[in-house]
Amino acid sequence: MYISETTIRVRYAETDRMGYVYYGNYAQYYEVGRVEALRQLGMSYKGLEDSGIILPVMDYSVKFLKPAFYDDLLTIKTIVPEIPRVRIKFLYEVYNETGDKLNEGETTLVFINQKSNKPCAAPVEFMNNIGKYF
Amino acid sequence: MYISETTIRVRYAETDRMGYVYYGNYAQYYEVGRVEALRQLGMSYKGLEDSGIILPVMDYSVKFLKPAFYDDLLTIKTIVPEIPRVRIKFLYEVYNETGDKLNEGETTLVFINQKSNKPCAAPVEFMNNIGKYF
Amino acid sequence: MYISETTIRVRYAETDRMGYVYYGNYAQYYEVGRVEALRQLGMSYKGLEDSGIILPVMDYSVKFLKPAFYDDLLTIKTIVPEIPRVRIKFLYEVYNETGDKLNEGETTLVFINQKSNKPCAAPVEFMNNIGKYF
Amino acid sequence: MYISETTIRVRYAETDRMGYVYYGNYAQYYEVGRVEALRQLGMSYKGLEDSGIILPVMDYSVKFLKPAFYDDLLTIKTIVPEIPRVRIKFLYEVYNETGDKLNEGETTLVFINQKSNKPCAAPVEFMNNIGKYF
Repeated sequence: MYISETTIRVRYAETDRMGYVYYGNYAQYYEVGRVEALRQLGMSYKGLEDSGIILPVMDYSVKFLKPAFYDDLLTIKTIVPEIPRVRIKFLYEVYNETGDKLNEGETTLVFINQKSNKPCAAPVEFMNNIGKYF
Repeated sequence: MYISETTIRVRYAETDRMGYVYYGNYAQYYEVGRVEALRQLGMSYKGLEDSGIILPVMDYSVKFLKPAFYDDLLTIKTIVPEIPRVRIKFLYEVYNETGDKLNEGETTLVFINQKSNKPCAAPVEFMNNIGKYF
Repeated sequence: MYISETTIRVRYAETDRMGYVYYGNYAQYYEVGRVEALRQLGMSYKGLEDSGIILPVMDYSVKFLKPAFYDDLLTIKTIVPEIPRVRIKFLYEVYNETGDKLNEGETTLVFINQKSNKPCAAPVEFMNNIGKYF
Repeated sequence: MYISETTIRVRYAETDRMGYVYYGNYAQYYEVGRVEALRQLGMSYKGLEDSGIILPVMDYSVKFLKPAFYDDLLTIKTIVPEIPRVRIKFLYEVYNETGDKLNEGETTLVFINQKSNKPCAAPVEFMNNIGKYF
């Protein structure tokens, strides 16, 4: 299991008239969570794409427990629970500054070779980096 | 069961560098789907909020089958599968112009009395309007 | 001068905790305004891009007079005030349902040949279509 | 003159199919710039709002020089060029990691008393904090 944390400050743009972070914006926070999780492993999601592999999201779910508010400094905990193969699963937990869990979610992404537009195995370097955690 | 359809044209802003609609933007499309579903029933989501009831999203999930692209004219099919009580569930299906199903999702929202900040029953008028379909 | 109108319904996602449409979202509304202005001329902005010409925005300004609110049905008036050459200028005016002017803005875009990454003249077909209005 | 800097990492969600940061997203980056500028002065924009004063944007302009790309670590330089009164002007400059200036912009915001919905003077504490720089 690989666990990583990053923080995000809620922008005004991300709130809605209810005063909450709009429910659709957590997809961006989760994106930041998984990209920083990879960076902390010494890998770049951008580098992966530049090498011809894209990682579209296949499914996404989120369970909302409490709202986040403007200017909250959120902690995004990102977990890779199992060794990736053609697919990679990420779990997410979002906490506010007082330690309340605000929501938890999950995405599955698939490694796609951009030339063939077909699923492919995760790159060897990626597997070497993340493999240590399993 | 209540079924409704609305269309959305994909904006440039909603695409990402992969050329796809960013996976996080479907939450907005689904929002438009459920708001227009209510409007077609003669009800206004805004009116509901103005009357002191908010409807935060409790959970949200989506399964992506195919990407949507810039300028696609999407059809959002919104379904209320069961009679709402304190909660209301919406199912969504998104189709492109050639009839391909691009994704399907689901949200559960809860009726909250804004003064007490507690769950409450759906308003009588709302139930009268939607009740005919069940 | 070429003038075109389109309507946009304000999404919940586009509001902020002040209850206003977030000031940054008008860039999207203006984008919809100019794309629909072209479509009403029988032209597709997507088609333009597919033919190898991109139109990045060089400058953008907006003056806010009154806020727009959730669920407002806005009219975006888009004006091409002068004959385009390598650059094309668009003016925008946004009105709510009671006819109040909410804001007015302006963008300049430049025709770029995607292969050479250099400015180029507007395509002949485009000039023929829009030329009638000048 | 008061000058402040903050950094922002470009999110995937913020790119468009051209591969650029969508032109409309700089409004959010500028928002982050001015909020962090205030925070570095020991002030909270949220606190200001909680005290009953909102700061809607009256005008906004931006001149784009070069695009920003996915995963770029941008520096937002935010400048308050003159002593605020009922209005406050912010200037912005955005740089990428190689030091290229990507765009520059400007916003004017107005202090509004939320109860009366009328313009008001900037709060005394705010003026004391920022006054030292002029």
